[in-house]
Amino acid sequence: MPALQRLLIGYSHMPNFSIGVDLGGTNLRIAAVNQQGDLMEKVTLGTRVALGKDHVIGEMCDAIRVLAAKYGSTFALQGIGIGVPGIIDMKTGMLRESPNLPGWAETPVRAEIERLLGTRVILENDANVAALGEKWLGAARDVDDMAMLTLGTGVGGGIVLQGRIWHGMTGMAGEFGHMTVEPEGPPCGCGNRGCVEQYASATAVVRMAREAIASGRAPGLARAASSDPEFSSKAIYNLAIQGDEEAKKIFARVGRALGICLANLVNAFNLNMYVIGGGASSAWEAFSPFIFEELRQRSLVYAATAPASPLSGGAGASGHVGPEGSTKTIITLALLGSDAGLYGAAQLPLTSN
Amino acid sequence: MPALQRLLIGYSHMPNFSIGVDLGGTNLRIAAVNQQGDLMEKVTLGTRVALGKDHVIGEMCDAIRVLAAKYGSTFALQGIGIGVPGIIDMKTGMLRESPNLPGWAETPVRAEIERLLGTRVILENDANVAALGEKWLGAARDVDDMAMLTLGTGVGGGIVLQGRIWHGMTGMAGEFGHMTVEPEGPPCGCGNRGCVEQYASATAVVRMAREAIASGRAPGLARAASSDPEFSSKAIYNLAIQGDEEAKKIFARVGRALGICLANLVNAFNLNMYVIGGGASSAWEAFSPFIFEELRQRSLVYAATAPASPLSGGAGASGHVGPEGSTKTIITLALLGSDAGLYGAAQLPLTSN
Repeated sequence: MPALQRLLIGYSHMPNFSIGVDLGGTNLRIAAVNQQGDLMEKVTLGTRVALGKDHVIGEMCDAIRVLAAKYGSTFALQGIGIGVPGIIDMKTGMLRESPNLPGWAETPVRAEIERLLGTRVILENDANVAALGEKWLGAARDVDDMAMLTLGTGVGGGIVLQGRIWHGMTGMAGEFGHMTVEPEGPPCGCGNRGCVEQYASATAVVRMAREAIASGRAPGLARAASSDPEFSSKAIYNLAIQGDEEAKKIFARVGRALGICLANLVNAFNLNMYVIGGGASSAWEAFSPFIFEELRQRSLVYAATAPASPLSGGAGASGHVGPEGSTKTIITLALLGSDAGLYGAAQLPLTSN
Repeated sequence: MPALQRLLIGYSHMPNFSIGVDLGGTNLRIAAVNQQGDLMEKVTLGTRVALGKDHVIGEMCDAIRVLAAKYGSTFALQGIGIGVPGIIDMKTGMLRESPNLPGWAETPVRAEIERLLGTRVILENDANVAALGEKWLGAARDVDDMAMLTLGTGVGGGIVLQGRIWHGMTGMAGEFGHMTVEPEGPPCGCGNRGCVEQYASATAVVRMAREAIASGRAPGLARAASSDPEFSSKAIYNLAIQGDEEAKKIFARVGRALGICLANLVNAFNLNMYVIGGGASSAWEAFSPFIFEELRQRSLVYAATAPASPLSGGAGASGHVGPEGSTKTIITLALLGSDAGLYGAAQLPLTSN
């Protein structure tokens, strides 16, 4: 009997724990989390993508074994949950597409890891586990139905209905980043024009800044770009909060695109909460007023269910949804930062017994 | 014990039946339907809205009593399901808004009917029952997860997930008609601009035709409008199938707007089937090619899951979804016509025991 299999059996009086993995194209993070959602230990490694899939999986499994052995004497391991950037066939555990993990597509990732560890493994899309993490322990912990938009290099999305990830027919639900907000807008890598991702991703913020610089009407942005070799969405946000008009206009476009997308989601789903997360969501102060402006105009469902003050009514500063908030549409910033996916991945084996 | 209450108890060996009601602003239709979905008898009355709510409810209850007595000796009545054009508070059975039933808003419609009949009554939004009817017995009978767009005076929508209506937080889910397809498009009564309803409703088809006539570039439409006092979307469709270029352009706009909306729904929900129904869907031949053109360009989820031939792969001529169709995104015409809502209403008491 493999060591982990023995640990899995455990003793019935042992409290449960699981190991969550956030397998990104840059970072590989692994955490032991108990049933209550307490993070007991977190390990962060670089994802050495260039060394190939087997190497990355080997490093990941080594770290999992260490955590499993360390906590397995006092807690009962329920399994391993792994968030992966890509499209997963939930039935077979095959990774179908994964642009950020070259060479991983069309391989039986789940079966390989299960064979190495001898324990149950659940693979899940990274945007879905981020949504589940925010539902479990973050901004949406007091609601049953929520969706999350993750603003990063691209724009990802996840849906949680009645506490569980909504996968749709083929695991592709929640592709909010490729919803059309402007039919004749900028071309997108997906083949469409005017996708949310072309306005609200970190990549789009930098592109819009470079377009403004090229037009010659953005001296502040031009100075920042020429002095900063890593000219990023964060640098553009810093200019916006210092009052640079062209930088502010860029975040107005971010907010308007998100507002149109959210108005469509609110009209279609009528969920209790929509959470905005991901690295580029740190510019919330600059773009969120435009979200609410668009929502009020474009969603009759939002107009009928908006909290008295969108930034405080319904969800308090802590993100807590009070009794009033339970029938209000709340749009709010994520609370768990880059740990959302790690927590969501860890929850998978704890709830799907 | 009221007569209907006695009927409700019935005998355990009796097959079940229910009574479905489609309470429209124009027609009031009432049907006795058995557990298998066979329509045993249908009564159609005009809805005499001008005589007031109590009169309409009285006429409806009289017809229900006749059907209940007639079939209650051989079938066990499970309750009454009523589709209503408006927003319903599912908990209290209050009708919150109903533009087509003046004077009904903010009244306890369910309680009033239950009191008169002495039996269980379920109220439901008319677009939701149409979706449920198509799921039970129509185009979507072989899938678990579907959405429906109903193209009528306005554009309504309904969502069925795992065989049950998805209401959302406050019963307002499925407001597809007010999703934005063109941020700067024509103003809509809801306060937004460029709603699907401004392109794909029967009302919008006539408005676009009148705009074309006013521009002086649509002689065919102008002739039809001047000779036909009831110049309707049907008359414009007839011109389109006869080859009138301006009429064809109108249905291209219908299809493109529906295509953008559907691309957004497919990307967000990843459902198995999206059904297009309602009176204006009879122009399917004229608008549907543009739906598929937009979908292929605008939805990466559709591109990954489209049947080989959108009009035959997946769903056959009968609407039947074969094994291949079960992981394909199928966009198809409704099958039940104006009876969809009647069947869906009848199913409510048969499944929610």
